[in-house]
Amino acid sequence: MRIFVSGPSGVGKSTIIAEILKRNPDFVLSVSYTTRTARPREVHGKDYFFVSAREFEDMMKKNEFLEWARVHDNLYGTSLSWVESQEKLGRHILLDIDVQGVKQAQGKRVSGTYIFILPPSIDELVKRLAKRGTEDERSFRLRLNNAKDELKAWTMYDYLVVNDDIARAIDDVQSIIDAQRCSRFEMIGRIPWLQEIE
Amino acid sequence: MRIFVSGPSGVGKSTIIAEILKRNPDFVLSVSYTTRTARPREVHGKDYFFVSAREFEDMMKKNEFLEWARVHDNLYGTSLSWVESQEKLGRHILLDIDVQGVKQAQGKRVSGTYIFILPPSIDELVKRLAKRGTEDERSFRLRLNNAKDELKAWTMYDYLVVNDDIARAIDDVQSIIDAQRCSRFEMIGRIPWLQEIE
Repeated sequence: MRIFVSGPSGVGKSTIIAEILKRNPDFVLSVSYTTRTARPREVHGKDYFFVSAREFEDMMKKNEFLEWARVHDNLYGTSLSWVESQEKLGRHILLDIDVQGVKQAQGKRVSGTYIFILPPSIDELVKRLAKRGTEDERSFRLRLNNAKDELKAWTMYDYLVVNDDIARAIDDVQSIIDAQRCSRFEMIGRIPWLQEIE
Repeated sequence: MRIFVSGPSGVGKSTIIAEILKRNPDFVLSVSYTTRTARPREVHGKDYFFVSAREFEDMMKKNEFLEWARVHDNLYGTSLSWVESQEKLGRHILLDIDVQGVKQAQGKRVSGTYIFILPPSIDELVKRLAKRGTEDERSFRLRLNNAKDELKAWTMYDYLVVNDDIARAIDDVQSIIDAQRCSRFEMIGRIPWLQEIE
């Protein structure tokens, strides 16, 4: 199965994802392709697939990416065939994809379960964003407006998880995964006799 | 929300439903209308709504039932407006409806989450049916064939829960309910600020 997780900056998404991966050893985190240079401890195929701009653009032309984006001068993208190759190995995929990426994926009819992590309120989001660093008023406003724009995309998601309590939010995402394991599409492969009843 | 639960006879559905109702006090079990006579300890409005054949047929004509059936000489049906009135009171509904009833409900585009409880295997189902009583070979065959026919209806359901371990099956149904609580439709009423972001 494919679980897409999005959420505005500061909402606790990374903590939730790390814990979900720990609890579900049959899940892997999606590895993106990027044109940026590897940093000292980054491993090709684990942190990212590091490719040249030329290779990345070839993949774009072949419609390889379920979503891609330019961030500063670098390109980042998620390969659908990589996801499918992991699924063939029996793995489930957790995709940490932002709102713009989900828009692209859904535009391409990429099937999956789409989860949106929300702050308990706008005020709480402002607090969490403010904690993040010493920056000027203008940068802060910009980040807040970005977060608000992202929140407006809630309608794209199958599930909304409010992170007012991190343990509760993790349990909610876990329930969504556990339910998904019982979905007809996931189960039918595990009940071969059901299709053979005479 | 509306959770429909079906499963062939002997699959442990009643035990699962009883435990789910205990764990989720905001859920009520759907109460059917019937034309049969109330038994000594049965309470109108709790066990059934006991109505005359005339009343039942009036409701049928008004398309009141999301499903109905004749069993022996009695009519049984689930009223959609009763379900909706419970929902207006803030209650969630658990509907114990058989395969034929689910066919009718889906034919009428009744929205809800449809769960099918399965035995771990056909052999196990045979064992559990055999335990149920001292009956002749012919009656047993009939019940087994009914169960098999019901199992073939698995394609109608959103979720398939295998009852090879009752505690596990209950947890699976609970996960489906917990996930459903996080569904966009259920959540949006609880996050009014999300629709008001400027």
